[in-house]
Amino acid sequence: MTTSIPLPIAGVRLGTAGAGIKTPGRDDVLVIELAEEAACVAVFTQNRCCAAPIIVARRHLAAGRPRLLLCNSGNANAGTGAEGVMDALASCRALAELAGRPPEAVLPFSTGVIGERLPMPALLEAIPGAYARRGEAGWEAAARAIMTTDTRPKVYTARVPIAGVTVSVTGIAKGAGMIHPNMATMLAFIATDARIAGPALERCLREAVAMSFNRITVDGDTSTNDACVLIASGQVPLPVEGVPAALGEAIGSACAALAEAIVRDGEGATKYIAIEVVGGRSEAECLAIARAVAGSPLVKTACHASDPNWGRILAAVGRSAPGDLEVGDLSIRINGVEVVSDGKRAGGYTEEQGCEAMAAPDLHIRIGLALGSARAEVYTCDLSAEYVRINAEYRS
Amino acid sequence: MTTSIPLPIAGVRLGTAGAGIKTPGRDDVLVIELAEEAACVAVFTQNRCCAAPIIVARRHLAAGRPRLLLCNSGNANAGTGAEGVMDALASCRALAELAGRPPEAVLPFSTGVIGERLPMPALLEAIPGAYARRGEAGWEAAARAIMTTDTRPKVYTARVPIAGVTVSVTGIAKGAGMIHPNMATMLAFIATDARIAGPALERCLREAVAMSFNRITVDGDTSTNDACVLIASGQVPLPVEGVPAALGEAIGSACAALAEAIVRDGEGATKYIAIEVVGGRSEAECLAIARAVAGSPLVKTACHASDPNWGRILAAVGRSAPGDLEVGDLSIRINGVEVVSDGKRAGGYTEEQGCEAMAAPDLHIRIGLALGSARAEVYTCDLSAEYVRINAEYRS
Repeated sequence: MTTSIPLPIAGVRLGTAGAGIKTPGRDDVLVIELAEEAACVAVFTQNRCCAAPIIVARRHLAAGRPRLLLCNSGNANAGTGAEGVMDALASCRALAELAGRPPEAVLPFSTGVIGERLPMPALLEAIPGAYARRGEAGWEAAARAIMTTDTRPKVYTARVPIAGVTVSVTGIAKGAGMIHPNMATMLAFIATDARIAGPALERCLREAVAMSFNRITVDGDTSTNDACVLIASGQVPLPVEGVPAALGEAIGSACAALAEAIVRDGEGATKYIAIEVVGGRSEAECLAIARAVAGSPLVKTACHASDPNWGRILAAVGRSAPGDLEVGDLSIRINGVEVVSDGKRAGGYTEEQGCEAMAAPDLHIRIGLALGSARAEVYTCDLSAEYVRINAEYRS
Repeated sequence: MTTSIPLPIAGVRLGTAGAGIKTPGRDDVLVIELAEEAACVAVFTQNRCCAAPIIVARRHLAAGRPRLLLCNSGNANAGTGAEGVMDALASCRALAELAGRPPEAVLPFSTGVIGERLPMPALLEAIPGAYARRGEAGWEAAARAIMTTDTRPKVYTARVPIAGVTVSVTGIAKGAGMIHPNMATMLAFIATDARIAGPALERCLREAVAMSFNRITVDGDTSTNDACVLIASGQVPLPVEGVPAALGEAIGSACAALAEAIVRDGEGATKYIAIEVVGGRSEAECLAIARAVAGSPLVKTACHASDPNWGRILAAVGRSAPGDLEVGDLSIRINGVEVVSDGKRAGGYTEEQGCEAMAAPDLHIRIGLALGSARAEVYTCDLSAEYVRINAEYRS
């Protein structure tokens, strides 16, 4: 993650305002306006109980070229039935009228508590202010406006030289709980000023998301409101067709960095944990095991306690491994320390080594299967009593 | 669960002793001896990294008729490689010699910490005492000897009249964490004095386990050591072939009651939660959704807080539901209070009603899909900060 000021993206203007949806006095409404030349693609949650704005955004994206994005935090507008869809449409119409566009030009996004109607009068009152304040320097404020239980804004920015021209990539994301994306993510908006056609941009987004947002989990719960939007504002013509490799990598890095930031800010998290599974016959085989280990509350509480309790890792591998796994071939390394080899405690391994390895704030757990040469990696955080406190004490 | 003194089962003798495996001064070794006429069947964990005693017990069960069960708590003898298998075999040999049986007549079981070798000298020293003290009144002491993080022993007992004869069913179980059985359970030993042939007994066990131990989850982690044993000691000849319905029901009730006791004693649990999904097209469809809701840490923390946060239930349904689920047909009831109908907050539902319903120590969450007429139910407990404390502070 970069800590510098986010690079503005020519052709992308962002404005925020406060509607007091959950917390009075903070900006919770975001408007993003795209230039005429911009291409915009998105992926959405696969949750069957998806929120009203997801239904509307999918429909509007299919109907034409989005020129405006409208996002609120504090209320997810999910579990709100037909009335929720009407509310999402009404908010799109309000913004579209201000901008002299058809309602289909607006993609709506919401994040926050599920099951409550949007406070429409307050939202409709805030939209003109957010629209009026739009500007290319609005990324930092935008990152703050979409936060819910996040403790910090998540911004990524990079400059990419491509055959004589330089393009910029800037992205923001939010998310801390209900994080287990599937073909989508929590809310993320990523933009480049490069000119890229829609289909190429879409492929680029799907590839980037598959390796980043779709590889993280905080608590195994997939949100009703996940969405990730990739914008190519079209201000910088590229000398090549499609998405140049360097730009694809930069967009991949943006997604990876924002996904990592979500995990690091996971509710109650004190550790960042990468679970790498190597030596599988396929990526899918490795991924299934990595996800099981990353999702295990016993592994996550052991990480929280810096306890090298590798038996819990072994148990999670065992419940997710293919039928022909040879336990006697299994190996486990924690931050480089060989803990398990040949399916049992490694020769020469001491509990002291394990405790020292586990004490680090960043943990890399590497599991070797000895079945093939494929690998996969997923990212998670520890499970602390603070996670329970956050989710038991507050309505989120 | 019964609280009365467990009925002895003629032909089943139990003895315990202390080997000081984890906690000095408590009995942690259990021997069960079966009469000549007894049939004994078992199901085991499907975890691929299963423990050494599971490997040996499977082999011995396939080789012949078990006459002796040997169980220790405090050490799982899992993740111990070929040496662990040798230790399990050596403990079987020790008991077999005392009883004048071949080693294959002994089924070994272990539960406790993973990854450490069994303290063989102490175990071998304790076995003769446990064997010497065996008797038909030993069920209560046996239930205590197999406990690990359990806070209380789990015993079930019932008398079943069958066409003029009366048979008894008594069972014990242990388990509180790493509970998400798959085709097996935590350790459970159930016995009846009826005479039943092996194949009929096996069908009876599989049916009972499918609807009890395989329907519970505490934390989603499947143990390496799960096993459930059903014994028919053969002392009471039955006037009918196979397993009479009343006896099948009693064995089913024993499994259900012991499974419920495990969930109620779930690590850090303060609430018992039944998740019922109705209106699916198949039991499997209902079960997948019920499992997702039961496994959701966000639903479990909301239950802990007595917070009627039905949006989290909706989100868990949505991530596990079939592609053609109509959100607008969904309904949710909590302890009889209609919280969601037509996929949104039910008309007339108030937060006060929800809070009152959620305040109960036993919660029944009923989810209606309106797709068909199948149903399924699973059982879980809430997720508390105490769960994290137990698993972060202690090596288990």
